[in-house]
Amino acid sequence: MNRQTTAQRWYFRERPAEKVNGDTFEWREEPVGDLADGQFLLRTLYLSLDATNRVWLSDWDIYMEPVQIGEPMRGFVFGEVIASRHPDYPVGCHASGLHTWSSLIVSDGTGFAPFPALDGIDLAEAFATMSVAGPTAHVGLHHIGGLRSGETVVVSGAAGAVGVLVGQIAKIAGARVIGIAGSDEKCALLRREMGFDATINYRTENVADRLGELCPKGIDLCFENVGGDILDASLTHMKDFGRLVVCGLISTYNAAGKVPGPFMFRNLIMRRLTVRGFVILDHMDLFPAVLADLATWLRDGRLKMPVHMVHGLENAPEALNLLYTSGNTGKLLVKLD
Amino acid sequence: MNRQTTAQRWYFRERPAEKVNGDTFEWREEPVGDLADGQFLLRTLYLSLDATNRVWLSDWDIYMEPVQIGEPMRGFVFGEVIASRHPDYPVGCHASGLHTWSSLIVSDGTGFAPFPALDGIDLAEAFATMSVAGPTAHVGLHHIGGLRSGETVVVSGAAGAVGVLVGQIAKIAGARVIGIAGSDEKCALLRREMGFDATINYRTENVADRLGELCPKGIDLCFENVGGDILDASLTHMKDFGRLVVCGLISTYNAAGKVPGPFMFRNLIMRRLTVRGFVILDHMDLFPAVLADLATWLRDGRLKMPVHMVHGLENAPEALNLLYTSGNTGKLLVKLD
Repeated sequence: MNRQTTAQRWYFRERPAEKVNGDTFEWREEPVGDLADGQFLLRTLYLSLDATNRVWLSDWDIYMEPVQIGEPMRGFVFGEVIASRHPDYPVGCHASGLHTWSSLIVSDGTGFAPFPALDGIDLAEAFATMSVAGPTAHVGLHHIGGLRSGETVVVSGAAGAVGVLVGQIAKIAGARVIGIAGSDEKCALLRREMGFDATINYRTENVADRLGELCPKGIDLCFENVGGDILDASLTHMKDFGRLVVCGLISTYNAAGKVPGPFMFRNLIMRRLTVRGFVILDHMDLFPAVLADLATWLRDGRLKMPVHMVHGLENAPEALNLLYTSGNTGKLLVKLD
Repeated sequence: MNRQTTAQRWYFRERPAEKVNGDTFEWREEPVGDLADGQFLLRTLYLSLDATNRVWLSDWDIYMEPVQIGEPMRGFVFGEVIASRHPDYPVGCHASGLHTWSSLIVSDGTGFAPFPALDGIDLAEAFATMSVAGPTAHVGLHHIGGLRSGETVVVSGAAGAVGVLVGQIAKIAGARVIGIAGSDEKCALLRREMGFDATINYRTENVADRLGELCPKGIDLCFENVGGDILDASLTHMKDFGRLVVCGLISTYNAAGKVPGPFMFRNLIMRRLTVRGFVILDHMDLFPAVLADLATWLRDGRLKMPVHMVHGLENAPEALNLLYTSGNTGKLLVKLD
């Protein structure tokens, strides 16, 4: 196999009823043809695994076209241009974008952007922060959530890629931050290295009781990545006129059948809450300003992104399930060999 | 019994597990003492029954002090001042306010306001519209919901006091209105006399399917009074970036134990929705402008309020349950004999 002419790819074969499994995807090796004018050839270095990948495999009516059975699996990728007939993507340039789980990608640039070098920042950490998670955390907190200095923020999935950034960006904005995560190790990391004011281990502590203790005056802003019981615990302790930003409901994405919404839904009235769902792809107009902030904070050390690295594209399907079992800390990336 | 010196009152005796029942309240007849300086004596003419009355009897953490066991039951009342040592409430003046289920009320004016005469408008209809339901509908649609001309509005509990006004006020604002109600008679009334563009009888039709037919481009604004399956049906058919105003969840107020939230909660993300709960008592600052609009529309015939009249304060507890069984059409009032 010639690494410059044969692409390894995962195709979507069978809709999973619950978790992604051995039948969900099909591995193929396919020749890459010659480039047409205006195209470039990208060698994928990192594949981003994101909770919403599972949503794209559902038969739900979702926020974009789902991946169709028989198509290559979709994902956010980062790579190096190794051949080019495109003026904006010269050989040697790095690029990131929304494409497919593929070792080699031929593109005319649709869905891609050149990826700027960030001096002193590891490429994987830069990609992990700048591509999706960073804009999601920044836009969710500020544009959707209207965060103000001095507020109390609770973030679930706090040790996930978005969660760790939500906490750090909220701290930069002058908020008090409480993170909910799935192990004592994650909680310690969030407090000691990411600046979180307090953490709750949802596997060993009663989240609702602990939120009551930690937020005696209530929660101003809940940044929700998880849903289920954890969202209910936050709903129980929202301050009057508080806001909830619903970024993800990862606890529900593998569920077969109907999933009940939060049992404390009535608190939307009782606490007069505003709840807003959002998808970062709707906010590309904010990216220039947001990416400038993120780059500044990465460079000056105020923003850190732990990377959970899985090696080998062949391991991507199994690795995806880590997201739904608290198996990763920070950004889950696949490094292609 | 002297009607001017003996008050008939309902006291809260026992918290109901589900519906209000014969043990919930206790009837008492009590002497009314002399007026102190700055007080007036109100003879209650109408008692307003509202879905939120049931919420005040729960042990939930709600938006205001619940009614405590042993206290008189709380309610919105309308009456005539029959004795007065208060300069703003002369004998013969009408007043409305938040007080108790009582035939005679001694007050220093706290929670009350004089009720202006609306030429040509029946007093019961004016009270039914202006006291709570009208401000709730107006503020919910415009201030909370940001209604714009040309939008498609769906309102549940459409034949209830708030619902009939939501539909009519949305029509005045240039919206298309679909109402969900519990009988063919109610639906016919909403279409023929209240100007609704379409209706759905939730007892005989599949609400989700019908909303899909009636709103092929989706719902811009859902004004929710009911919750449960009906809210789920609307969530399923929201337009991208649509808004839901959560005014009531009447289907859940009598439930014992935990009530699941909407199963289509994920559509907050998929459709990027904004959901806002509100309570009209937070928006008293908007009342002057809102009441002026309502009075104008009542006078010029653009706003009508059907009144479902129950006779006799002694029948108030049983009448309250009509609200939870689709038993009333329009505003449910108790007329005191």
